[in-house]
Amino acid sequence: MTQTPIRSTSTLRGLRCRECGAEYAAEARHVCEWCFGPLEAAYDYEAIRSRVSHQSIAAGPRSIWRYRPFLPVSGERLIDLGTGLTPLIRSERLARRLGLKALYLKNDAVNVPSLSFKDRVVSVALTRARELGFTTVSCASTGNLANATAAIAAHAGLECYIFIPADLEAGKVLGTLIYGPQVLAVDGNYDQVNRLCSEVADRHGWGFVNINLRPYYSEGSKTLAFEVAEQLDWQLPDHVVAPIASGSLYTKIYKGFQELIKTGLVADKPVRMSGAQASGCSPVAEAFRGGQDFVTPVKPATIAKSIAIGNPADGIYALDIARKSGGSIADVSDSEIIEGIKLLAQTEGIFTETAGGTTVAVLKKLVEAGQIDPEETTVVYITGNGLKTQEAIAPYAGEPLQIEPSLASFERALERARTLDRLDWQQTLV
Amino acid sequence: MTQTPIRSTSTLRGLRCRECGAEYAAEARHVCEWCFGPLEAAYDYEAIRSRVSHQSIAAGPRSIWRYRPFLPVSGERLIDLGTGLTPLIRSERLARRLGLKALYLKNDAVNVPSLSFKDRVVSVALTRARELGFTTVSCASTGNLANATAAIAAHAGLECYIFIPADLEAGKVLGTLIYGPQVLAVDGNYDQVNRLCSEVADRHGWGFVNINLRPYYSEGSKTLAFEVAEQLDWQLPDHVVAPIASGSLYTKIYKGFQELIKTGLVADKPVRMSGAQASGCSPVAEAFRGGQDFVTPVKPATIAKSIAIGNPADGIYALDIARKSGGSIADVSDSEIIEGIKLLAQTEGIFTETAGGTTVAVLKKLVEAGQIDPEETTVVYITGNGLKTQEAIAPYAGEPLQIEPSLASFERALERARTLDRLDWQQTLV
Ligand SMILES: [Zn+2]
Ligand SMILES: [Zn+2]
Repeated sequence: MTQTPIRSTSTLRGLRCRECGAEYAAEARHVCEWCFGPLEAAYDYEAIRSRVSHQSIAAGPRSIWRYRPFLPVSGERLIDLGTGLTPLIRSERLARRLGLKALYLKNDAVNVPSLSFKDRVVSVALTRARELGFTTVSCASTGNLANATAAIAAHAGLECYIFIPADLEAGKVLGTLIYGPQVLAVDGNYDQVNRLCSEVADRHGWGFVNINLRPYYSEGSKTLAFEVAEQLDWQLPDHVVAPIASGSLYTKIYKGFQELIKTGLVADKPVRMSGAQASGCSPVAEAFRGGQDFVTPVKPATIAKSIAIGNPADGIYALDIARKSGGSIADVSDSEIIEGIKLLAQTEGIFTETAGGTTVAVLKKLVEAGQIDPEETTVVYITGNGLKTQEAIAPYAGEPLQIEPSLASFERALERARTLDRLDWQQTLV
Repeated sequence: MTQTPIRSTSTLRGLRCRECGAEYAAEARHVCEWCFGPLEAAYDYEAIRSRVSHQSIAAGPRSIWRYRPFLPVSGERLIDLGTGLTPLIRSERLARRLGLKALYLKNDAVNVPSLSFKDRVVSVALTRARELGFTTVSCASTGNLANATAAIAAHAGLECYIFIPADLEAGKVLGTLIYGPQVLAVDGNYDQVNRLCSEVADRHGWGFVNINLRPYYSEGSKTLAFEVAEQLDWQLPDHVVAPIASGSLYTKIYKGFQELIKTGLVADKPVRMSGAQASGCSPVAEAFRGGQDFVTPVKPATIAKSIAIGNPADGIYALDIARKSGGSIADVSDSEIIEGIKLLAQTEGIFTETAGGTTVAVLKKLVEAGQIDPEETTVVYITGNGLKTQEAIAPYAGEPLQIEPSLASFERALERARTLDRLDWQQTLV
């Protein structure tokens, strides 16, 4: 037993190699020295089990930190902007449209502070970064991760450097610059940017949330599982549909469910795990369809940029989970993604980005293929906000009717619109 | 006693004229027939008092509907997307910068579903609209209200018509169109659009959230008071700073606090109510400074469009509350608003729109003028998201540093940036 009161409440026991099981201290390190496998946080589950209950969680903060014993931090000084506890909405209109009886939407499009699930992983990574003594944090990103890192670093008063591709859209740059980090626009491809970041991490000793802090960072996604279970009154769903980019979010949701079972917070039951990819970047879906246990890298070409990872680090783990849980991994075209965004907005009032459109479109596809049972309690993860990918959807959202400020002009426009609607409707029936 | 079980749980007793006290049934009506004063929802506070407790509220939904006895609805069929219960953040870095000891930020920039406080008022208005038998709902708006009405109507399956000015920015139009309402772009000024909407309401019997449903709609803002009190463990703050547009939000926050006192949920204590306007549209601040009890309309000219109401309907009520509570109403220039947005983003990681920038800038101004005591528990209301007014802030957010994908190029850029920072810093010291 250590004498330090802060460490005594920690359940984090170190890092462990996912491949060979080698153990490491809980430092800023992400690759196994022996086999180059990915390192993952390891916990004392007996300590967690003896410490947490439905009541202790309900009495905790209104944020991801209510699940703190399951998260890879050791101290009491948490970065808490109210991240997490996003709504789990029981769908009525989308469920009816798809013929599902118990469909739920986990809405991270309104996550705090920066409107995507990345707020979860970054809150955990930066809390751990501060515990490990980092005063400067960083990431390489094309969007959501840049926004989340810049925002949460600003809140915590950590110095922050964000590496972006030089050709990033102005809106995404603004959503990062506003928080006052140093933003570096790199004139190079994704691989070159990543190599540069690794060099910078080594040279300057900075904490890169998705490189040397990755084992801590990725654990934040488990809160998407914990919250859904709590919001379902401590029941696991029958089936979930989540996007697959690197595969980390998807595998961590699965891990979260397993941890709840292991610690007795929910009854043991199977959860079918289905995954969503865009056809323009679907290496995991390809491997799933092909019955392969490896993932062949692809070059991304899709509007769903936030999930377009051609060489997904956790792809093989995702494949394994999909197969052993009885789920599917499917992909949808860019036009199906657009339709998915519109379908969700028009039935549920949730405006999601292209990743969410992908997930909704895959949900629809799996239902139509009979791979989701209408009776199953199904949870769909919506991971980001539509205001961030406006350029992708703008050409397909329609146009206002132009009128003069008179009742007569309004009535004429209304009549025209209703006639058009009737024609559309009749075409739909054909 | 009525026999209808649904009505028996209702605490809504009708509408009452704010000027002459004339009483009306709880219908779609907003102006007094006798004196043309505004109508307001009236409740049976004894019934509320006997029915609500801290425990009953805590056991309620995770949304504004946990305060349902205080809201103007009579049935059980609520439109609930998880609106409200937004984070109340204890500020560390902004508080230190301003020299305040207990500053809190109520963050409606992440409200559900459409990222502004309007989600609260529209959820209440449309729930009541459905109770009153409306199947078509509508509003006239330039932004946040259009987004909220379109989103929540889509969720509820209500037919929806949105009237916007013909010259509205593309981003705001998209954020409305995506939910599939009929959007009407009116080629006319604000007065002409409003007159047209009143005619349409009469002719078609539609529910306009901010016209004939206004007494219900406006009550939704009280939840901003209820949540703050609950999040402060059922204490009222000493001082609040809120934006003033029509004055409705500001006066309803005050009303919310009074209702909590009246029903015994919090101890009676004074709350100083301060209000924020943009100098380019500051009729209430002008009247406050001039010691007038009337408000002289102005023509708006400010970047803070979402609060630029030249003839604020509740302006005189706001004046009265500011004076009797010992608060202030102040205004700030457009450049101070920009600085307010950046200050909040860079100290707290919250990216707000121009209305929030106005409120933060007024907070700073009041602190500097000695009108906020550093010891006071002060709550600042951040009412909308910065992704909605990108064009206002973009020119002032800075630029990325352009680099090649090499460590050498990075180091050179870093050195340049640090030199510039030192120069900036030295200039700040001068
Ligand atoms: Zn290993
Ligand atoms: Zn009257």
